[in-house]
Amino acid sequence: MSKTFLIVAAALALGALLALAQPATGDRPLVPYPDGYRAWRHVGSVVNEATDKNRATTPHGTIHHLYANDLALEGLRTGAFPEGAVFVADWFSLKEKYPGGFEEGARLRLDVMVRDARFAATGGWGFDQFAGDSITARNVAPGAAPKQCFECHTRASARGYVFTRPPL
Amino acid sequence: MSKTFLIVAAALALGALLALAQPATGDRPLVPYPDGYRAWRHVGSVVNEATDKNRATTPHGTIHHLYANDLALEGLRTGAFPEGAVFVADWFSLKEKYPGGFEEGARLRLDVMVRDARFAATGGWGFDQFAGDSITARNVAPGAAPKQCFECHTRASARGYVFTRPPL
Repeated sequence: MSKTFLIVAAALALGALLALAQPATGDRPLVPYPDGYRAWRHVGSVVNEATDKNRATTPHGTIHHLYANDLALEGLRTGAFPEGAVFVADWFSLKEKYPGGFEEGARLRLDVMVRDARFAATGGWGFDQFAGDSITARNVAPGAAPKQCFECHTRASARGYVFTRPPL
Repeated sequence: MSKTFLIVAAALALGALLALAQPATGDRPLVPYPDGYRAWRHVGSVVNEATDKNRATTPHGTIHHLYANDLALEGLRTGAFPEGAVFVADWFSLKEKYPGGFEEGARLRLDVMVRDARFAATGGWGFDQFAGDSITARNVAPGAAPKQCFECHTRASARGYVFTRPPL
């Protein structure tokens, strides 16, 4: 083998290794972590019973709290969501507080949907999921779309892809 | 019988009738309805399974959301609750949203606790309950104390009678 071949092969191998080491960024803009969302308006909560799939980790089921920033509240009032509207679903396992009473246990994940015209492929909303308590770790590679978010939210396409319609 | 006796007796009878006609105001100041509490900080929620006592009206159990005004948040941060701190527990029956998923149904009541030195007999907190969606109807006569509130909250007397201690 020639020296040139070895150098080229080494460079290709290094490139492949570097490509593996890089997170797959996909072709989407990054959905930012929703700083300060705990001070946003609480618009409602949903309780889910444990399922066969998650009973081992969440035997008492889960709860997720829904928060909306001011632009999302404007959208809930008017029916049209302006750019920058953000909803958050803050997921927890339920833990027993006293017999028959349950409160938030460990945070499971934080779902975010942000109104941003760059996400035209998903209804003008960018969806993402932050893992557990992390403000950086995501449940899919940064820039990749968590598929199930948009798939499910298409059921509410007639309402701007937003499920919640609380009295405000 | 003398005329004087009859007049005095009639006056006493009239006084007794008027006392009966008045709502029993007890000896407590009135706990005001917490205007605007839905925009306060959501500090957590508690889910209660249906019990034998309430299964007929709330077969899927209840949820109550806890909200704190700015002074109550200050107390949660410092451990000392200033006058005017208010917590609210907003109670709903849980209704099935989809199989295994539950959200807020009808509002059951609104519990209020307000930090006010005039309520010295109940740990410096005034407790009250508004019935259903009403901003005026209370579950006990205006000015009377809902007994079970303070009785239960004495369990948290070492923490200023406040159960919740969320990370903020």
